[in-house]
Amino acid sequence: MIVLTEWKTQVEQALETFMNRLEAPDRLREAMLYSLDAGGKRVRPALIYAVLDAYGVDRKTGDATAAALEMIHTYSLIHDDLPAMDDDDMRRGRPTNHIEFDEATAILAGDALLTNAFTCLLETMAAAEVKVKLLERLAAAAGAAGMVGGQLDDMLGERGGISDAEELESIHRRKTGALLIFAVEAGGILAGVADEDLEQLKRYGRHLGIAFQIQDDILDVTGDADKIGKPVGSDEGNDKATYPKLLGLDGAKRALAAQVTAANEAIEALSVEATPLKDLLDFVVKRDH
Amino acid sequence: MIVLTEWKTQVEQALETFMNRLEAPDRLREAMLYSLDAGGKRVRPALIYAVLDAYGVDRKTGDATAAALEMIHTYSLIHDDLPAMDDDDMRRGRPTNHIEFDEATAILAGDALLTNAFTCLLETMAAAEVKVKLLERLAAAAGAAGMVGGQLDDMLGERGGISDAEELESIHRRKTGALLIFAVEAGGILAGVADEDLEQLKRYGRHLGIAFQIQDDILDVTGDADKIGKPVGSDEGNDKATYPKLLGLDGAKRALAAQVTAANEAIEALSVEATPLKDLLDFVVKRDH
Repeated sequence: MIVLTEWKTQVEQALETFMNRLEAPDRLREAMLYSLDAGGKRVRPALIYAVLDAYGVDRKTGDATAAALEMIHTYSLIHDDLPAMDDDDMRRGRPTNHIEFDEATAILAGDALLTNAFTCLLETMAAAEVKVKLLERLAAAAGAAGMVGGQLDDMLGERGGISDAEELESIHRRKTGALLIFAVEAGGILAGVADEDLEQLKRYGRHLGIAFQIQDDILDVTGDADKIGKPVGSDEGNDKATYPKLLGLDGAKRALAAQVTAANEAIEALSVEATPLKDLLDFVVKRDH
Repeated sequence: MIVLTEWKTQVEQALETFMNRLEAPDRLREAMLYSLDAGGKRVRPALIYAVLDAYGVDRKTGDATAAALEMIHTYSLIHDDLPAMDDDDMRRGRPTNHIEFDEATAILAGDALLTNAFTCLLETMAAAEVKVKLLERLAAAAGAAGMVGGQLDDMLGERGGISDAEELESIHRRKTGALLIFAVEAGGILAGVADEDLEQLKRYGRHLGIAFQIQDDILDVTGDADKIGKPVGSDEGNDKATYPKLLGLDGAKRALAAQVTAANEAIEALSVEATPLKDLLDFVVKRDH
């Protein structure tokens, strides 16, 4: 999908520009860039750009928010990989941050990415009221009620056991869903869409988020290890709750289809022909990594 | 000093109000509150309130910023205490966060305090432009160019050795100084002071910050273990660079006096009679813990 590559390039340039300007000790900058440059699908920035494309707004408008969001996503991966958390040595085919550098540097690189994501967001070319709204939403999505809280409950769940799809969904809605919904909402705020469209965009983001997670879990069962960058079946060995474990593989596929239908309904309800959002949904569901 | 107790109570109430409203999983909230409630001198909030008092502005104006700043200071203590960082088991006479809970919870409690500090700051009753200015300054002070960068260089310094007072000052200026300067600046911004006064306030904050650190180092040599809450001479045993080590105890005391003089000059240059700032400087220098 050509447009996905364009969105990826767009946010990577925005990140490079921001990081070039950011003052930081060499080792800290190196550790921040190591994880920022590790690639990944850049789905969150893509969601912002897809909304802007759908409403015919210059992509540049979303650069600062897209880069900020990717910084926050990256910090969360660095901290999640730490020995005290998921204790992962490899990510995306490369040593994780604390393996490449050391634990203290990885903790601080994460802290700096999180803090300076707000610096980055504030460089958005928009009225102060818009910046304040974006910041409020981002901090809420990334904080105790959102991503961080979801991560903690996920951790507790791995210890104590998660028994139904509803509980699993509550964790994912916060751990990964909140930032995905923020991405779509931020695109809408930046594009200045009407409240009705903003609601539909968030609905789209919510279903896309769950679809994303189900597809992740399915790929862990059926995927190609080289493509997904970690051993297939790695969820199987531990006590991690997944959709295929709770619903069976067929059940998980049906649940995925239901989420896609709901996301498509939200797209149809928008006031514009949002082909970019359809394309992105398609990518999320059909990806093999 | 009665007014110091008032400022302390003021920020503790603001923190309680904010935390009561913040949505968070139980264990995360518990870990956040454990460290927020650990007491401490609340010097950063006090600086904000002292400026507001000096300019005759209602203290309430500073509540959201003061609470946000204390959240960021608290997160930095939690992360600094982690095994991979300073590996401290005790702080202020109580087990550190990762000892009381566990490492993963401590990392996440720190992340949440940092993220939601921005949520808290945004509750400031002020125009959007003022909020944006405060946020920019806070993120800059706490991020890669400020506190986090200073912490990394401090860590590297402990490994590699810091040989002169200038290098030591550069680390402290970022690690602890940046947030102290922000506190005074934020007070000035919230009070709507003229640019000339803002410059003098920052100058005051800079010298007070260095004085604060020198006094900390002196207390580690001459202090009373029960009062400072850690063994006296704990800096001696490790390779940590301190002012008494680099300048001798008398040299450190002279350096402290010079900083106090400079801070007082900045106070004198203000357009108001800033007794609260004098009181706070006095407290910082004469404290025994």
